[in-house]
Amino acid sequence: MIRKHVVLAADLAGTVVFAIEGANAAIHAGLDLLGVLVLSFVVALGGGIVRDLLIGDTPPSALRDWRYPTLAFIAGLVTFFFYTQVAVIPPALLTTLDAAGLALFAVAGAEKALDFQMGSLSAVLLGTITGCGGGVIRDLLLTHVPMVLVANIYASAALLGATIVVVGRRLGCPPAVAAVLGGVVCLALRLAAVRYNWQLPRLA
Amino acid sequence: MIRKHVVLAADLAGTVVFAIEGANAAIHAGLDLLGVLVLSFVVALGGGIVRDLLIGDTPPSALRDWRYPTLAFIAGLVTFFFYTQVAVIPPALLTTLDAAGLALFAVAGAEKALDFQMGSLSAVLLGTITGCGGGVIRDLLLTHVPMVLVANIYASAALLGATIVVVGRRLGCPPAVAAVLGGVVCLALRLAAVRYNWQLPRLA
Amino acid sequence: MIRKHVVLAADLAGTVVFAIEGANAAIHAGLDLLGVLVLSFVVALGGGIVRDLLIGDTPPSALRDWRYPTLAFIAGLVTFFFYTQVAVIPPALLTTLDAAGLALFAVAGAEKALDFQMGSLSAVLLGTITGCGGGVIRDLLLTHVPMVLVANIYASAALLGATIVVVGRRLGCPPAVAAVLGGVVCLALRLAAVRYNWQLPRLA
Repeated sequence: MIRKHVVLAADLAGTVVFAIEGANAAIHAGLDLLGVLVLSFVVALGGGIVRDLLIGDTPPSALRDWRYPTLAFIAGLVTFFFYTQVAVIPPALLTTLDAAGLALFAVAGAEKALDFQMGSLSAVLLGTITGCGGGVIRDLLLTHVPMVLVANIYASAALLGATIVVVGRRLGCPPAVAAVLGGVVCLALRLAAVRYNWQLPRLA
Repeated sequence: MIRKHVVLAADLAGTVVFAIEGANAAIHAGLDLLGVLVLSFVVALGGGIVRDLLIGDTPPSALRDWRYPTLAFIAGLVTFFFYTQVAVIPPALLTTLDAAGLALFAVAGAEKALDFQMGSLSAVLLGTITGCGGGVIRDLLLTHVPMVLVANIYASAALLGATIVVVGRRLGCPPAVAAVLGGVVCLALRLAAVRYNWQLPRLA
Repeated sequence: MIRKHVVLAADLAGTVVFAIEGANAAIHAGLDLLGVLVLSFVVALGGGIVRDLLIGDTPPSALRDWRYPTLAFIAGLVTFFFYTQVAVIPPALLTTLDAAGLALFAVAGAEKALDFQMGSLSAVLLGTITGCGGGVIRDLLLTHVPMVLVANIYASAALLGATIVVVGRRLGCPPAVAAVLGGVVCLALRLAAVRYNWQLPRLA
């Protein structure tokens, strides 16, 4: 019971953080108020919506529970109308919160995929998509090559976290242990990668 | 019975107008004949297809009823092969027809979402997506930031129209009244916004 | 029984070819290793995933059978780590293999749509999407206007191949005959178009 509340609280918190980031990106790109709200929604909920479409769990949970879109829109409105105050949030704090949101979404996405009887590889991919999908849609809407494809250990951290969840569950770990382990590793890897500027190899 | 025919006729008319606009955009962007047909299809039917995927009503109605894609392709072919004649259509007329198509699709989309037991907020969002989704896909295919995110009262008009439909239905309005009211307000707001160059606020 | 193995082998071969092309595009665009793997996956399997979402056959077969994503990722990894060797493959060979993959995917996509009771027009469109969809997503992720919309007889070859399959089946042809005929025509048209630089008409 307590666990359920913790998960819900964490999920809503991740939604708020991602929505603020979406609103920030929209404001920097010169979008109007509607564009800000769309990007808040898409960054916060797009990854989960793509996951649910792929799993076949329609309508996506983000459209069945009004609290998620409402929260994303409120976060977008607050960011827009109190932009000077929101801009004061230290980048390091935002990065940390974003990494926490990434870890949370990747773990939750992998768990949901397993609950829907997806195979191990697919569950890992769906966890990663849940964590990164919103940011990819944001970049496409702003006509940038998606940031996660170009540089930084970001999707890779989500991938590792989701892998730990799936492998842990397959090996018979208690779900809560696998989830915490996967989330902590994803968070730690992401923060270390930012701190030490780790990059994946590339050729060109 | 008469109402059913009116709705069908309006729906097909909206499809034709949006398909012509898609073909126009494709021709201006230098696409070949196939690109013109793809954009006719996508602008006319893309919003409804995304709505149906999100609702879980698959295959989307645009792929179950051959009349819709056929009509979109014919409109695209005519625009391509009689471009000089189509280019003569006064822009003001096209803008009005486009606003009518937007109103129609937003209302029809919200109604379909309600028929599928979606919640109020989701029905409003799905109505808006039905109206604007095709234009967003067009802009993405042409690698522009979607016009509806940047400027103009366009998606907002669809949003208001869809909201009126949903609120009206929840308050017990006869469906036809809610639909006409929502459609007229959407149309009027869109046309007024074009006429007086109304814009949503933006920061940057 | 033999036929089933031939179809499976052809399908897996098409997946490998498309995955190599996706990896090549990613490397040229300067993406990192993760971006290379994502583009391998998307080019090889994106068209089929979009088809399955539209048909309503979820989860998409590419996520139900671990062999497809595994093969795409291996092809991406090999292309990345043995890039100098892969770069030696003559372009003419790659073009031929790509045309073969296009033919195969278009035929297989149209057949699957027919198996799911889609109408004739929709089956043709879904076959075309299966053949070209992965390349469209690749171009969108790299923020190019999709190549198939601008020039070359590429999607048109897939469209013709899928049309032959659907018309053949409707006329009572044995499925294998319709499939081979559609595939050969698609392949031949694509190769002839490359050889003689055939283009569709365009206005601008």
